[in-house]
Amino acid sequence: MSPDRVQTGDIYWPGAPNWRAWAHVTKLDPDRPLSQTAAKAVLASGTDAVLIGGSTGITQTSVLDLMSRLRDCANGGKLPPIALEVSTLEAAMPGPDLFLIPQVLNTDQIEWLGRAQVEALTRLLPHFESVIPWHLIIPEAYLILNPDSSVARLTGANTELSAASVAALVAYATRINCLPLLYIEYSGTYGDPEIVKVAKSNAGAAHVVYGGGITNAQQAAEMAAIADTIVVGNLVYSNPEWLAETVTATRSAKF
Amino acid sequence: MSPDRVQTGDIYWPGAPNWRAWAHVTKLDPDRPLSQTAAKAVLASGTDAVLIGGSTGITQTSVLDLMSRLRDCANGGKLPPIALEVSTLEAAMPGPDLFLIPQVLNTDQIEWLGRAQVEALTRLLPHFESVIPWHLIIPEAYLILNPDSSVARLTGANTELSAASVAALVAYATRINCLPLLYIEYSGTYGDPEIVKVAKSNAGAAHVVYGGGITNAQQAAEMAAIADTIVVGNLVYSNPEWLAETVTATRSAKF
Repeated sequence: MSPDRVQTGDIYWPGAPNWRAWAHVTKLDPDRPLSQTAAKAVLASGTDAVLIGGSTGITQTSVLDLMSRLRDCANGGKLPPIALEVSTLEAAMPGPDLFLIPQVLNTDQIEWLGRAQVEALTRLLPHFESVIPWHLIIPEAYLILNPDSSVARLTGANTELSAASVAALVAYATRINCLPLLYIEYSGTYGDPEIVKVAKSNAGAAHVVYGGGITNAQQAAEMAAIADTIVVGNLVYSNPEWLAETVTATRSAKF
Repeated sequence: MSPDRVQTGDIYWPGAPNWRAWAHVTKLDPDRPLSQTAAKAVLASGTDAVLIGGSTGITQTSVLDLMSRLRDCANGGKLPPIALEVSTLEAAMPGPDLFLIPQVLNTDQIEWLGRAQVEALTRLLPHFESVIPWHLIIPEAYLILNPDSSVARLTGANTELSAASVAALVAYATRINCLPLLYIEYSGTYGDPEIVKVAKSNAGAAHVVYGGGITNAQQAAEMAAIADTIVVGNLVYSNPEWLAETVTATRSAKF
Protein backbone atom coordinates (compact mmCIF):
# COMPACT_ATOMS: atom_id res chain seq x y z
CA MET A 1 0.00 0.00 0.00
CA SER A 2 1.42 3.36 -0.95
CA PRO A 3 1.57 6.30 1.44
CA ASP A 4 -0.81 9.21 1.17
CA ARG A 5 0.54 12.61 0.35
CA VAL A 6 0.61 15.37 2.95
CA GLN A 7 -2.78 16.85 3.75
CA THR A 8 -3.60 20.50 3.57
CA GLY A 9 -3.82 22.34 6.83
CA ASP A 10 -0.97 20.33 8.29
CA ILE A 11 1.42 23.21 8.60
CA TYR A 12 0.47 25.50 11.45
CA TRP A 13 1.12 29.19 11.23
CA PRO A 14 1.67 31.39 14.26
CA GLY A 15 -1.73 32.12 15.70
CA ALA A 16 -3.53 29.25 13.97
CA PRO A 17 -5.04 26.76 16.41
CA ASN A 18 -3.90 23.14 16.19
CA TRP A 19 -7.32 21.81 15.28
CA ARG A 20 -6.05 18.29 14.64
CA ALA A 21 -5.47 17.97 18.39
CA TRP A 22 -9.13 18.55 19.24
CA ALA A 23 -10.74 15.30 20.43
CA HIS A 24 -14.02 16.74 21.75
CA VAL A 25 -15.77 19.71 20.19
CA THR A 26 -18.98 21.37 21.33
CA LYS A 27 -21.22 22.65 18.55
CA LEU A 28 -23.39 25.67 19.24
CA ASP A 29 -26.12 26.95 16.97
CA PRO A 30 -26.40 30.75 16.82
CA ASP A 31 -30.08 30.32 15.94
CA ARG A 32 -30.88 28.69 19.32
CA PRO A 33 -30.91 30.58 22.61
CA LEU A 34 -28.12 29.44 24.94
CA SER A 35 -29.00 29.60 28.62
CA GLN A 36 -26.54 30.89 31.19
CA THR A 37 -26.47 27.39 32.68
CA ALA A 38 -25.63 25.86 29.30
CA ALA A 39 -22.92 28.42 28.57
CA LYS A 40 -21.32 27.76 31.95
CA ALA A 41 -21.51 24.00 31.34
CA VAL A 42 -19.66 24.40 28.02
CA LEU A 43 -16.88 26.42 29.63
CA ALA A 44 -16.55 24.04 32.57
CA SER A 45 -16.71 20.87 30.50
CA GLY A 46 -13.11 20.79 29.30
CA THR A 47 -14.20 20.60 25.65
CA ASP A 48 -11.33 21.32 23.26
CA ALA A 49 -13.12 23.86 21.09
CA VAL A 50 -16.45 25.46 20.29
CA LEU A 51 -17.77 25.04 16.77
CA ILE A 52 -20.35 27.62 15.72
CA GLY A 53 -22.62 26.44 12.96
CA GLY A 54 -26.14 25.56 11.93
CA SER A 55 -28.47 25.33 8.99
CA THR A 56 -30.47 28.55 9.33
CA GLY A 57 -30.26 31.97 10.93
CA ILE A 58 -26.46 32.25 10.72
CA THR A 59 -25.85 35.99 10.60
CA GLN A 60 -23.10 38.27 11.85
CA THR A 61 -25.43 39.42 14.61
CA SER A 62 -26.36 35.94 15.82
CA VAL A 63 -22.73 34.77 15.74
CA LEU A 64 -21.54 37.89 17.58
CA ASP A 65 -24.27 37.45 20.20
CA LEU A 66 -23.20 33.87 20.80
CA MET A 67 -19.51 34.75 21.08
CA SER A 68 -20.33 37.61 23.47
CA ARG A 69 -22.41 35.32 25.64
CA LEU A 70 -19.51 32.89 25.98
CA ARG A 71 -17.04 35.69 26.66
CA ASP A 72 -19.28 37.26 29.30
CA CYS A 73 -19.78 33.92 30.90
CA ALA A 74 -16.02 33.26 31.00
CA ASN A 75 -15.76 36.53 32.93
CA GLY A 76 -12.16 37.17 31.94
CA GLY A 77 -11.23 33.49 32.13
CA LYS A 78 -9.93 31.36 29.30
CA LEU A 79 -12.22 30.55 26.38
CA PRO A 80 -11.71 27.46 24.25
CA PRO A 81 -10.79 28.21 20.62
CA ILE A 82 -13.80 29.13 18.52
CA ALA A 83 -14.23 27.77 15.00
CA LEU A 84 -16.91 29.21 12.74
CA GLU A 85 -18.55 27.33 9.91
CA VAL A 86 -18.91 29.91 7.17
CA SER A 87 -21.88 28.44 5.37
CA THR A 88 -23.22 31.74 4.03
CA LEU A 89 -21.66 35.05 3.07
CA GLU A 90 -23.64 36.62 5.93
CA ALA A 91 -21.63 34.55 8.40
CA ALA A 92 -18.21 35.77 7.19
CA MET A 93 -16.80 37.99 9.94
CA PRO A 94 -13.64 38.56 11.97
CA GLY A 95 -13.41 37.25 15.53
CA PRO A 96 -13.28 33.43 15.50
CA ASP A 97 -9.95 31.60 15.76
CA LEU A 98 -10.60 29.33 12.78
CA PHE A 99 -12.91 29.34 9.78
CA LEU A 100 -14.34 26.16 8.27
CA ILE A 101 -15.72 26.28 4.74
CA PRO A 102 -18.24 23.48 4.32
CA GLN A 103 -18.89 21.60 1.12
CA VAL A 104 -21.19 18.61 0.77
CA LEU A 105 -19.87 15.39 -0.75
CA ASN A 106 -23.18 13.60 -1.25
CA THR A 107 -25.33 16.09 -3.08
CA ASP A 108 -25.96 16.85 -6.74
CA GLN A 109 -26.79 20.50 -6.05
CA ILE A 110 -23.81 22.50 -7.27
CA GLU A 111 -24.58 25.31 -4.87
CA TRP A 112 -23.37 23.00 -2.04
CA LEU A 113 -20.47 21.64 -4.06
CA GLY A 114 -18.71 25.00 -3.92
CA ARG A 115 -20.68 27.30 -6.21
CA ALA A 116 -22.03 29.39 -3.31
CA GLN A 117 -18.49 29.98 -2.06
CA VAL A 118 -17.30 31.01 -5.52
CA GLU A 119 -20.13 33.53 -5.76
CA ALA A 120 -19.26 34.90 -2.33
CA LEU A 121 -15.59 35.19 -3.32
CA THR A 122 -16.54 36.98 -6.54
CA ARG A 123 -18.05 39.72 -4.39
CA LEU A 124 -15.50 39.65 -1.55
CA LEU A 125 -12.13 39.38 -3.31
CA PRO A 126 -12.05 42.79 -5.00
CA HIS A 127 -12.48 44.51 -1.63
CA PHE A 128 -11.12 42.17 1.02
CA GLU A 129 -8.52 39.89 -0.61
CA SER A 130 -5.67 41.31 1.46
CA VAL A 131 -7.45 40.89 4.81
CA ILE A 132 -8.87 37.40 4.35
CA PRO A 133 -7.00 35.17 6.87
CA TRP A 134 -6.22 32.38 4.40
CA HIS A 135 -4.08 30.49 6.91
CA LEU A 136 -7.06 30.22 9.28
CA ILE A 137 -9.39 28.78 6.64
CA ILE A 138 -9.90 25.01 6.48
CA PRO A 139 -12.08 23.32 3.86
CA GLU A 140 -14.57 20.95 5.51
CA ALA A 141 -15.98 18.04 3.50
CA TYR A 142 -19.40 16.97 4.78
CA LEU A 143 -21.00 13.58 4.42
CA ILE A 144 -24.60 14.05 5.55
CA LEU A 145 -26.24 10.78 6.56
CA ASN A 146 -29.48 11.47 8.45
CA PRO A 147 -32.27 11.83 5.84
CA ASP A 148 -34.60 13.45 8.39
CA SER A 149 -32.26 16.28 9.32
CA SER A 150 -32.79 19.85 8.16
CA VAL A 151 -29.27 19.94 6.75
CA ALA A 152 -30.05 16.91 4.55
CA ARG A 153 -33.21 18.57 3.26
CA LEU A 154 -31.49 21.92 2.80
CA THR A 155 -28.61 20.51 0.77
CA GLY A 156 -30.48 17.76 -1.07
CA ALA A 157 -28.10 15.19 0.37
CA ASN A 158 -28.34 11.66 -0.95
CA THR A 159 -28.25 9.79 2.35
CA GLU A 160 -29.04 6.33 0.96
CA LEU A 161 -25.45 5.27 0.47
CA SER A 162 -23.91 1.82 0.37
CA ALA A 163 -20.65 1.26 2.23
CA ALA A 164 -18.89 1.17 -1.17
CA SER A 165 -20.33 4.59 -2.06
CA VAL A 166 -19.26 6.04 1.27
CA ALA A 167 -15.76 4.66 0.70
CA ALA A 168 -15.57 6.17 -2.81
CA LEU A 169 -16.90 9.60 -1.81
CA VAL A 170 -14.49 9.74 1.09
CA ALA A 171 -11.49 8.50 -0.90
CA TYR A 172 -12.14 11.03 -3.67
CA ALA A 173 -12.41 13.95 -1.25
CA THR A 174 -9.51 13.00 0.99
CA ARG A 175 -7.04 10.80 -0.91
CA ILE A 176 -7.44 12.30 -4.39
CA ASN A 177 -8.32 15.93 -3.58
CA CYS A 178 -6.55 15.83 -0.21
CA LEU A 179 -9.19 17.78 1.69
CA PRO A 180 -7.87 17.77 5.25
CA LEU A 181 -11.11 17.48 7.23
CA LEU A 182 -13.99 15.05 6.76
CA TYR A 183 -17.14 15.56 8.83
CA ILE A 184 -19.50 12.58 9.15
CA GLU A 185 -22.77 14.31 10.00
CA TYR A 186 -25.68 12.33 11.43
CA SER A 187 -27.23 15.59 12.63
CA GLY A 188 -29.76 14.83 15.37
CA THR A 189 -29.49 11.04 15.34
CA TYR A 190 -26.84 8.60 16.54
CA GLY A 191 -24.97 7.14 13.58
CA ASP A 192 -23.91 3.70 12.45
CA PRO A 193 -20.42 2.98 13.84
CA GLU A 194 -19.74 0.57 10.96
CA ILE A 195 -20.26 3.36 8.41
CA VAL A 196 -18.03 5.70 10.42
CA LYS A 197 -15.36 2.98 10.36
CA VAL A 198 -15.66 2.70 6.58
CA ALA A 199 -15.25 6.46 6.28
CA LYS A 200 -12.25 6.57 8.61
CA SER A 201 -10.49 3.69 6.89
CA ASN A 202 -10.85 5.36 3.48
CA ALA A 203 -9.88 8.86 4.58
CA GLY A 204 -6.11 8.51 4.20
CA ALA A 205 -4.39 11.17 6.31
CA ALA A 206 -7.48 13.38 6.57
CA HIS A 207 -8.88 14.20 9.98
CA VAL A 208 -12.25 12.52 10.58
CA VAL A 209 -14.91 14.25 12.65
CA TYR A 210 -18.07 12.51 13.83
CA GLY A 211 -21.19 14.43 14.85
CA GLY A 212 -24.77 13.43 15.61
CA GLY A 213 -26.92 12.24 18.48
CA ILE A 214 -24.29 11.81 21.17
CA THR A 215 -26.24 12.03 24.43
CA ASN A 216 -24.13 10.06 26.89
CA ALA A 217 -20.64 8.93 27.80
CA GLN A 218 -21.00 5.50 26.24
CA GLN A 219 -21.85 6.92 22.81
CA ALA A 220 -19.08 9.51 23.09
CA ALA A 221 -16.58 6.76 23.87
CA GLU A 222 -17.78 4.54 21.03
CA MET A 223 -17.43 7.21 18.35
CA ALA A 224 -14.26 8.71 19.86
CA ALA A 225 -12.63 5.30 19.43
CA ILE A 226 -13.29 5.46 15.67
CA ALA A 227 -13.20 9.14 14.67
CA ASP A 228 -10.42 11.62 15.41
CA THR A 229 -12.85 14.17 16.83
CA ILE A 230 -16.39 13.88 18.13
CA VAL A 231 -18.85 16.75 18.13
CA VAL A 232 -21.55 17.13 20.78
CA GLY A 233 -24.32 19.60 20.04
CA ASN A 234 -27.95 19.05 21.04
CA LEU A 235 -26.96 17.75 24.48
CA VAL A 236 -25.84 21.27 25.44
CA TYR A 237 -29.40 22.47 24.96
CA SER A 238 -31.24 19.47 26.43
CA ASN A 239 -28.97 18.32 29.26
CA PRO A 240 -25.97 20.63 29.64
CA GLU A 241 -25.04 18.99 32.92
CA TRP A 242 -24.12 15.81 31.01
CA LEU A 243 -21.64 17.50 28.66
CA ALA A 244 -18.60 17.12 30.92
CA GLU A 245 -18.94 13.36 31.08
CA THR A 246 -18.85 13.11 27.27
CA VAL A 247 -15.53 14.95 27.45
CA THR A 248 -14.20 12.55 30.08
CA ALA A 249 -15.36 9.55 28.06
CA THR A 250 -13.69 10.95 24.93
CA ARG A 251 -10.36 11.39 26.72
CA SER A 252 -10.56 7.83 28.07
CA ALA A 253 -11.34 6.40 24.64
CA LYS A 254 -8.21 8.05 23.21
CA PHE A 255 -5.84 6.42 25.69
CA MET B 1 -1.69 39.64 3.83
CA SER B 2 -1.70 36.26 5.49
CA PRO B 3 0.31 33.31 4.19
CA ASP B 4 -1.31 30.41 2.40
CA ARG B 5 -1.24 26.99 3.97
CA VAL B 6 0.90 24.24 2.51
CA GLN B 7 -0.41 22.80 -0.73
CA THR B 8 -1.11 19.16 -1.32
CA GLY B 9 1.41 17.30 -3.38
CA ASP B 10 4.28 19.26 -1.89
CA ILE B 11 5.89 16.36 -0.15
CA TYR B 12 7.68 14.08 -2.57
CA TRP B 13 7.85 10.39 -1.93
CA PRO B 14 10.62 8.16 -3.24
CA GLY B 15 9.83 7.45 -6.85
CA ALA B 16 7.43 10.36 -7.31
CA PRO B 17 8.58 12.86 -9.92
CA ASN B 18 9.11 16.47 -8.84
CA TRP B 19 6.41 17.86 -11.11
CA ARG B 20 6.65 21.36 -9.68
CA ALA B 21 10.05 21.67 -11.34
CA TRP B 22 8.65 21.13 -14.83
CA ALA B 23 8.72 24.38 -16.81
CA HIS B 24 7.93 22.98 -20.25
CA VAL B 25 5.61 20.05 -20.82
CA THR B 26 4.69 18.40 -24.12
CA LYS B 27 1.13 17.16 -24.37
CA LEU B 28 0.41 14.17 -26.56
CA ASP B 29 -3.03 12.94 -27.53
CA PRO B 30 -3.35 9.13 -27.69
CA ASP B 31 -6.16 9.60 -30.19
CA ARG B 32 -3.82 11.24 -32.78
CA PRO B 33 -1.16 9.31 -34.70
CA LEU B 34 2.36 10.42 -33.74
CA SER B 35 4.87 10.27 -36.56
CA GLN B 36 8.38 8.95 -36.03
CA THR B 37 9.67 12.44 -36.77
CA ALA B 38 7.41 13.99 -34.17
CA ALA B 39 8.31 11.37 -31.52
CA LYS B 40 12.01 12.01 -32.15
CA ALA B 41 11.44 15.78 -31.92
CA VAL B 42 9.78 15.37 -28.52
CA LEU B 43 12.66 13.31 -27.17
CA ALA B 44 15.29 15.67 -28.57
CA SER B 45 13.52 18.86 -27.50
CA GLY B 46 14.60 18.89 -23.86
CA THR B 47 10.98 19.12 -22.66
CA ASP B 48 10.65 18.37 -18.95
CA ALA B 49 7.82 15.86 -19.20
CA VAL B 50 5.24 14.30 -21.48
CA LEU B 51 1.60 14.74 -20.55
CA ILE B 52 -0.74 12.20 -22.07
CA GLY B 53 -4.31 13.42 -22.36
CA GLY B 54 -7.15 14.32 -24.66
CA SER B 55 -10.90 14.60 -24.89
CA THR B 56 -11.80 11.40 -26.74
CA GLY B 57 -10.39 7.97 -27.50
CA ILE B 58 -8.40 7.65 -24.26
CA THR B 59 -8.18 3.91 -23.71
CA GLN B 60 -5.61 1.59 -22.20
CA THR B 61 -4.70 0.46 -25.71
CA SER B 62 -4.19 3.94 -27.13
CA VAL B 63 -2.18 5.07 -24.10
CA LEU B 64 -0.02 1.93 -24.19
CA ASP B 65 0.57 2.40 -27.93
CA LEU B 66 1.72 5.96 -27.37
CA MET B 67 4.05 5.03 -24.51
CA SER B 68 5.51 2.17 -26.57
CA ARG B 69 6.12 4.50 -29.50
CA LEU B 70 8.09 6.89 -27.30
CA ARG B 71 10.02 4.04 -25.69
CA ASP B 72 10.90 2.49 -29.05
CA CYS B 73 11.96 5.85 -30.36
CA ALA B 74 14.21 6.46 -27.32
CA ASN B 75 15.88 3.17 -28.23
CA GLY B 76 17.12 2.49 -24.71
CA GLY B 77 17.87 6.15 -24.03
CA LYS B 78 16.30 8.28 -21.32
CA LEU B 79 12.61 9.12 -21.53
CA PRO B 80 11.19 12.24 -19.87
CA PRO B 81 8.73 11.48 -17.04
CA ILE B 82 5.28 10.60 -18.31
CA ALA B 83 2.16 11.99 -16.64
CA LEU B 84 -1.24 10.59 -17.56
CA GLU B 85 -4.49 12.50 -17.27
CA VAL B 86 -6.96 9.92 -16.01
CA SER B 87 -10.13 11.43 -17.41
CA THR B 88 -12.02 8.15 -17.75
CA LEU B 89 -11.94 4.83 -15.95
CA GLU B 90 -10.76 3.26 -19.23
CA ALA B 91 -7.56 5.30 -18.98
CA ALA B 92 -6.61 4.06 -15.49
CA MET B 93 -3.57 1.80 -15.91
CA PRO B 94 -0.10 1.20 -14.50
CA GLY B 95 2.97 2.50 -16.35
CA PRO B 96 3.05 6.31 -16.18
CA ASP B 97 5.19 8.11 -13.61
CA LEU B 98 2.40 10.39 -12.41
CA PHE B 99 -1.39 10.42 -12.58
CA LEU B 100 -3.40 13.62 -12.88
CA ILE B 101 -7.08 13.53 -11.98
CA PRO B 102 -8.84 16.37 -13.79
CA GLN B 103 -11.83 18.27 -12.48
CA VAL B 104 -13.40 21.28 -14.14
CA LEU B 105 -13.85 24.50 -12.18
CA ASN B 106 -16.14 26.31 -14.60
CA THR B 107 -18.89 23.85 -15.33
CA ASP B 108 -22.27 23.12 -13.74
CA GLN B 109 -22.21 19.47 -14.85
CA ILE B 110 -21.53 17.46 -11.71
CA GLU B 111 -20.03 14.63 -13.76
CA TRP B 112 -17.00 16.93 -14.35
CA LEU B 113 -16.98 18.26 -10.81
CA GLY B 114 -15.88 14.88 -9.47
CA ARG B 115 -18.93 12.60 -9.78
CA ALA B 116 -17.33 10.52 -12.56
CA GLN B 117 -14.29 9.90 -10.37
CA VAL B 118 -16.46 8.86 -7.42
CA GLU B 119 -18.30 6.38 -9.63
CA ALA B 120 -15.00 4.98 -10.88
CA LEU B 121 -13.71 4.66 -7.30
CA THR B 122 -16.92 2.89 -6.26
CA ARG B 123 -16.06 0.17 -8.73
CA LEU B 124 -12.26 0.18 -8.27
CA LEU B 125 -11.75 0.42 -4.50
CA PRO B 126 -13.15 -2.98 -3.49
CA HIS B 127 -10.65 -4.71 -5.79
CA PHE B 128 -7.67 -2.39 -6.17
CA GLU B 129 -7.49 -0.14 -3.10
CA SER B 130 -4.17 -1.60 -1.96
CA VAL B 131 -2.45 -1.17 -5.33
CA ILE B 132 -3.61 2.34 -6.21
CA PRO B 133 -0.44 4.52 -6.11
CA TRP B 134 -2.00 7.33 -4.04
CA HIS B 135 1.32 9.17 -3.72
CA LEU B 136 1.56 9.47 -7.51
CA ILE B 137 -1.93 10.96 -7.91
CA ILE B 138 -2.32 14.72 -8.20
CA PRO B 139 -5.70 16.46 -8.48
CA GLU B 140 -5.74 18.85 -11.45
CA ALA B 141 -8.17 21.78 -11.44
CA TYR B 142 -9.07 22.87 -14.96
CA LEU B 143 -10.24 26.29 -16.05
CA ILE B 144 -11.40 25.85 -19.65
CA LEU B 145 -11.47 29.13 -21.54
CA ASN B 146 -11.79 28.47 -25.28
CA PRO B 147 -15.52 28.16 -26.08
CA ASP B 148 -14.78 26.55 -29.46
CA SER B 149 -12.71 23.68 -28.10
CA SER B 150 -13.99 20.12 -27.89
CA VAL B 151 -13.13 20.00 -24.19
CA ALA B 152 -15.35 23.04 -23.55
CA ARG B 153 -18.24 21.43 -25.41
CA LEU B 154 -17.66 18.05 -23.77
CA THR B 155 -17.66 19.45 -20.24
CA GLY B 156 -20.23 22.23 -20.70
CA ALA B 157 -17.65 24.77 -19.57
CA ASN B 158 -18.85 28.31 -18.98
CA THR B 159 -16.06 30.15 -20.78
CA GLU B 160 -17.62 33.63 -20.62
CA LEU B 161 -15.95 34.66 -17.39
CA SER B 162 -15.12 38.09 -16.03
CA ALA B 163 -11.71 38.61 -14.43
CA ALA B 164 -13.51 38.70 -11.05
CA SER B 165 -15.10 35.31 -11.73
CA VAL B 166 -11.76 33.82 -12.78
CA ALA B 167 -10.21 35.17 -9.57
CA ALA B 168 -12.98 33.68 -7.42
CA LEU B 169 -12.97 30.26 -9.10
CA VAL B 170 -9.20 30.07 -8.79
CA ALA B 171 -9.11 31.29 -5.18
CA TYR B 172 -11.77 28.79 -4.14
CA ALA B 173 -9.97 25.86 -5.76
CA THR B 174 -6.47 26.75 -4.67
CA ARG B 175 -6.60 28.95 -1.56
CA ILE B 176 -9.70 27.47 0.11
CA ASN B 177 -9.57 23.85 -1.09
CA CYS B 178 -5.78 23.90 -1.56
CA LEU B 179 -5.76 21.98 -4.83
CA PRO B 180 -2.08 21.96 -5.79
CA LEU B 181 -2.32 22.28 -9.57
CA LEU B 182 -4.33 24.74 -11.65
CA TYR B 183 -4.45 24.24 -15.42
CA ILE B 184 -5.51 27.25 -17.52
CA GLU B 185 -6.68 25.55 -20.69
CA TYR B 186 -7.16 27.56 -23.89
CA SER B 187 -7.09 24.30 -25.86
CA GLY B 188 -6.29 25.10 -29.51
CA THR B 189 -6.13 28.88 -29.24
CA TYR B 190 -3.61 31.28 -27.75
CA GLY B 191 -4.93 32.74 -24.51
CA ASP B 192 -5.24 36.17 -22.96
CA PRO B 193 -2.09 36.83 -20.89
CA GLU B 194 -4.05 39.24 -18.67
CA ILE B 195 -6.46 36.48 -17.66
CA VAL B 196 -3.56 34.10 -17.00
CA LYS B 197 -2.04 36.81 -14.76
CA VAL B 198 -5.32 37.11 -12.83
CA ALA B 199 -5.36 33.33 -12.35
CA LYS B 200 -1.73 33.19 -11.23
CA SER B 201 -2.11 36.07 -8.79
CA ASN B 202 -5.13 34.40 -7.14
CA ALA B 203 -3.70 30.89 -6.99
CA GLY B 204 -1.84 31.19 -3.69
CA ALA B 205 0.84 28.52 -3.50
CA ALA B 206 -0.75 26.34 -6.20
CA HIS B 207 1.24 25.50 -9.30
CA VAL B 208 -0.18 27.22 -12.39
CA VAL B 209 -0.01 25.52 -15.78
CA TYR B 210 -0.86 27.29 -19.03
CA GLY B 211 -1.83 25.41 -22.18
CA GLY B 212 -3.24 26.45 -25.53
CA GLY B 213 -2.10 27.64 -28.94
CA ILE B 214 1.61 28.04 -28.31
CA THR B 215 3.17 27.82 -31.77
CA ASN B 216 6.41 29.75 -31.44
CA ALA B 217 9.18 30.84 -29.09
CA GLN B 218 7.72 34.28 -28.46
CA GLN B 219 4.41 32.89 -27.22
CA ALA B 220 6.20 30.26 -25.13
CA ALA B 221 8.29 32.97 -23.51
CA GLU B 222 5.30 35.22 -22.85
CA MET B 223 3.27 32.56 -21.06
CA ALA B 224 6.31 31.02 -19.32
CA ALA B 225 6.94 34.42 -17.73
CA ILE B 226 3.45 34.28 -16.11
CA ALA B 227 2.66 30.61 -15.49
CA ASP B 228 4.84 28.09 -13.66
CA THR B 229 4.58 25.56 -16.47
CA ILE B 230 3.62 25.87 -20.12
CA VAL B 231 2.19 23.04 -22.15
CA VAL B 232 2.81 22.69 -25.88
CA GLY B 233 0.60 20.26 -27.75
CA ASN B 234 -0.64 20.83 -31.28
CA LEU B 235 2.74 22.11 -32.44
CA VAL B 236 4.14 18.58 -32.10
CA TYR B 237 1.69 17.43 -34.76
CA SER B 238 1.90 20.42 -37.09
CA ASN B 239 5.53 21.55 -36.83
CA PRO B 240 7.52 19.20 -34.59
CA GLU B 241 10.77 20.82 -35.70
CA TRP B 242 9.76 23.99 -33.82
CA LEU B 243 9.21 22.29 -30.47
CA ALA B 244 12.82 22.62 -29.27
CA GLU B 245 12.80 26.39 -29.61
CA THR B 246 9.72 26.65 -27.35
CA VAL B 247 11.76 24.78 -24.74
CA THR B 248 14.70 27.14 -25.13
CA ALA B 249 12.40 30.16 -24.91
CA THR B 250 10.78 28.76 -21.76
CA ARG B 251 14.15 28.28 -20.07
CA SER B 252 15.19 31.85 -20.97
CA ALA B 253 11.93 33.29 -19.64
CA LYS B 254 12.51 31.60 -16.28
CA PHE B 255 15.93 33.22 -15.74
